[in-house]
Amino acid sequence: MTDDHSTRGNYVKQGAEFNRDTQYIEDRILDDPQADWPVETGRYRLVAARACPWANRTMIVRRLLGLEDAISLGMPGPTHDARSWTFDLDPGGVDPVLGIERLQQAFFARFPDYPRGITVPAVVDIPTGAVVTNDFPQITLDFSSQWTRFHRDGAPDLYPESLREEMDPVMRLIYTEINNGVYRCGFAGGQDAYEKAFDRLFTALDTIEERLTTRRFLMGDRITEADVRLFTTLARFDAVYYSHFKCNRQRLTDFPALWGYARDLFQTPGFGDTIDFQQIKEHYFIVHEDINPTGVVPVGPDLSGWLEDHGRESLAEDAPFGEGTPPGPPRADEVVPHAHSADAWVK
Amino acid sequence: MTDDHSTRGNYVKQGAEFNRDTQYIEDRILDDPQADWPVETGRYRLVAARACPWANRTMIVRRLLGLEDAISLGMPGPTHDARSWTFDLDPGGVDPVLGIERLQQAFFARFPDYPRGITVPAVVDIPTGAVVTNDFPQITLDFSSQWTRFHRDGAPDLYPESLREEMDPVMRLIYTEINNGVYRCGFAGGQDAYEKAFDRLFTALDTIEERLTTRRFLMGDRITEADVRLFTTLARFDAVYYSHFKCNRQRLTDFPALWGYARDLFQTPGFGDTIDFQQIKEHYFIVHEDINPTGVVPVGPDLSGWLEDHGRESLAEDAPFGEGTPPGPPRADEVVPHAHSADAWVK
Repeated sequence: MTDDHSTRGNYVKQGAEFNRDTQYIEDRILDDPQADWPVETGRYRLVAARACPWANRTMIVRRLLGLEDAISLGMPGPTHDARSWTFDLDPGGVDPVLGIERLQQAFFARFPDYPRGITVPAVVDIPTGAVVTNDFPQITLDFSSQWTRFHRDGAPDLYPESLREEMDPVMRLIYTEINNGVYRCGFAGGQDAYEKAFDRLFTALDTIEERLTTRRFLMGDRITEADVRLFTTLARFDAVYYSHFKCNRQRLTDFPALWGYARDLFQTPGFGDTIDFQQIKEHYFIVHEDINPTGVVPVGPDLSGWLEDHGRESLAEDAPFGEGTPPGPPRADEVVPHAHSADAWVK
Repeated sequence: MTDDHSTRGNYVKQGAEFNRDTQYIEDRILDDPQADWPVETGRYRLVAARACPWANRTMIVRRLLGLEDAISLGMPGPTHDARSWTFDLDPGGVDPVLGIERLQQAFFARFPDYPRGITVPAVVDIPTGAVVTNDFPQITLDFSSQWTRFHRDGAPDLYPESLREEMDPVMRLIYTEINNGVYRCGFAGGQDAYEKAFDRLFTALDTIEERLTTRRFLMGDRITEADVRLFTTLARFDAVYYSHFKCNRQRLTDFPALWGYARDLFQTPGFGDTIDFQQIKEHYFIVHEDINPTGVVPVGPDLSGWLEDHGRESLAEDAPFGEGTPPGPPRADEVVPHAHSADAWVK
């Protein structure tokens, strides 16, 4: 996702609270041959920048469910200009499957006058080159519910029927207070809006910290979509949000349960192997010119702790994927460019 | 001190390394009745903003030596505009002794066309209203060596003859690599200059961390001027430099010896009682418009740890002030506006 911007570097509105533009292209790909967009292997391409937390969700769920062969993956680079995310990391600056330089072209292929933000994640229909949907919360739920025929053996149920009633409010809290809460701090247009946003964010983090003190994962013993959604914000917290968005009551590493939980997920196949801290830092510190006009990207913080033992197995009786299994390693062409290691942060 | 600026908010030079303007008014006040500026009680006013680390030195040394009655103290507010530090915290916005609104007036009283930065600390001759000196490293040394007749009973020797040979290189390292090193990171005009500055800073901090692992203070068992000089940067490290200047390999609190040492000094009369974290944060985050254009001041970090036990007494056999004594409490009119307490950071 980009963030409600019309020109690069123009994210903060003087004196105003940040409000996310939540109007997306809401078509769905359905497991129904009669549907406008039927589930079909090899037909769709997920465009998802590693830097972006909203896109990161889709990369993780695709990995956990084993949809890599059914839905291919295009990856724009970490920075973008006023118009669009670009495929600047690909040979010749062109996505090898879609043959485009800018994600904007796929939005225009769908709606020639598309007036809203050019956001990731977006699912593109390869034959027409047109965006089917950029409705990020629905994309992952549909990966779970509509693409079941293509799930790998041992794929987990990330959105179990029996848990949805409890899970939906948890995911809502995570979205409004945490995923979006960090942006509300960072894009606040004044001291008052910022301080209110800061209180909301840390109130929610305190709530989740307590929940995770006795549960290994948000919904108990097993990993669900709710964990994916929380993880992508936590992974960016100390590297970016703490300083760049002034979310600095404390670091993630200062919350015992949340930090153990985040490491637990990071060390689970499908999570940490999608994270590229260097791309994450470059995205925020370079793209948000009105927050960081110098464009200088911090060398720190020391992120080596992500690989340390978390000791959270004792909180659960069941395995993280229940009777399922963790995914295998990522495809060779999807290994993160800056793979994380204990000294990865040192230049 | 302000920092080599011609207009407020213009601190970073594109692509360039930061170089401090070190040309000051270098007159000295001497313990010699024939001197141009002889030591004389009640004649001079020290102008020192609580926010500024260079000014903070002079406030600490004045307290440690008990010079409060001999040299009065004027305190500009934490923020300033392009022209000057202002006395906006005083009734009517006027310094009650000098009768001026802006420190610039005292520089102009000395040199009508004074072309350089209007910096704190500055020592002003009260009868003429003219700045005598703003040469900050010399000011504190002269408090020690020239004002001895007015030192309190039990005042420490902060610059002992027997230690100078060892102490001068330590103070030079602290100045070039740490005091100025954080600014070199924050005002770097590009990624390369920043990364070089970052390496220099943390190399020096690692050196000092090692030194302080076996010594209670920089020169051993007793507090000296070297400690004052290091302390004022450490006090601002997590609150400001870590995020605002991107000095984020780790926080001060992640260095065991430095953090214990900093708390030890903070809890010593004359040090922590000069620190106003709120003014410090407001200064940097509001004045440096080209680093933080929104002017939003972070609520965090949690600074309550400054009051925790440090356990460093066991590293020394002698007392911190030797056969001397700690200073008494600050004068009533010099108590910090935002006195630090365990929950001081919470709005």
